Amino acid sequence: MYEGIVQDLIDEFGRLPGVGPKSAQRIALFIVQNANYDPAALSEILQTVREKVRFCQTCGMISENDTCGFCSDGKRNSAMICVVEEAKDVLAVERTREFRGLYHVLGGAISPIDGIGPDDLRIKELLARLASTDVTEVIIATDPNLEGEATATYLSRLLHQPGLTVSRLASGLPVGGDLEYADEVTLGRAFEGRRSIS
Amino acid sequence: MYEGIVQDLIDEFGRLPGVGPKSAQRIALFIVQNANYDPAALSEILQTVREKVRFCQTCGMISENDTCGFCSDGKRNSAMICVVEEAKDVLAVERTREFRGLYHVLGGAISPIDGIGPDDLRIKELLARLASTDVTEVIIATDPNLEGEATATYLSRLLHQPGLTVSRLASGLPVGGDLEYADEVTLGRAFEGRRSIS
Repeated sequence: MYEGIVQDLIDEFGRLPGVGPKSAQRIALFIVQNANYDPAALSEILQTVREKVRFCQTCGMISENDTCGFCSDGKRNSAMICVVEEAKDVLAVERTREFRGLYHVLGGAISPIDGIGPDDLRIKELLARLASTDVTEVIIATDPNLEGEATATYLSRLLHQPGLTVSRLASGLPVGGDLEYADEVTLGRAFEGRRSIS
Repeated sequence: MYEGIVQDLIDEFGRLPGVGPKSAQRIALFIVQNANYDPAALSEILQTVREKVRFCQTCGMISENDTCGFCSDGKRNSAMICVVEEAKDVLAVERTREFRGLYHVLGGAISPIDGIGPDDLRIKELLARLASTDVTEVIIATDPNLEGEATATYLSRLLHQPGLTVSRLASGLPVGGDLEYADEVTLGRAFEGRRSIS
């Protein structure tokens, strides 16, 4: 144990996700010993981040305003909505540069084990959006795991209405991967979703 | 890229050692989205840590006072000094419960490539300590790598004086390891330092 505040600093860093005791010690000693590093910047941001951060009232994305940059961007295709679990998934989709529509962040996935049901997600908000705007396609981009699949199935049934296309991201072999090392479910999905190359 | 302060928070965490872009994003989103986590505690510590942390004027250990808990502890054996490179090495030695003497933190190791010579380390302070107190043994516990070995050799020559035992931590096979997987230098050291089991 270090004395007083240094141990406090290690303990506080240890409370953050993915930071183990050794990493926390390394970070704390870096902050204490590295003269070129100024901890004031991080301190200030931490102090104000909770006040400043809002969630977009339309899509639920993290934002500094009531409407996020995506929803207020007139150049994006407002007829398409990509539904994701978390804010970080929006960034992942953006990095593909394949999608220029709008987003809807659910805030998680249906998971009975964790006590998360449909009412705990931003599904009501999604239905309200669909009712008041001219959306023609909803792309469900939840995670390809048990909870994500359950959420996708639930949503696809709920959104079944005339004039609205509901799609799900393709499952299959990851690009750059090895067929030999693909698990049987993924390989099975790749067969199921095979595309004609005519 | 996230908007404004959230991206600032990710960038600031990304500046810390061992925190990559993905970890930084994960930590920042945890702080923003987790209602049970209060970022004020970490913010406050970061604000005051630089003012509050001192280095022990005797041994160079991180402390909140001018003299650290080890140096001011009358129960410790002041005739033995264990010389280490960094503050974290003191904690590592303490965890062994094998040593009840005092410490001396050099603040690094001799490394010509990085431009670190003997004058950049707390060696003068060590010599002053030895001159003014009744130390009978100095244990050199620098890292068992090139820089640590160079520092140990340099110190052992410098400290050569009557009435003072200078020792170096044993090199050899790590406990719990496999002889087969030991590198040749380590295995060679283990032979060199073999102990009679009579």
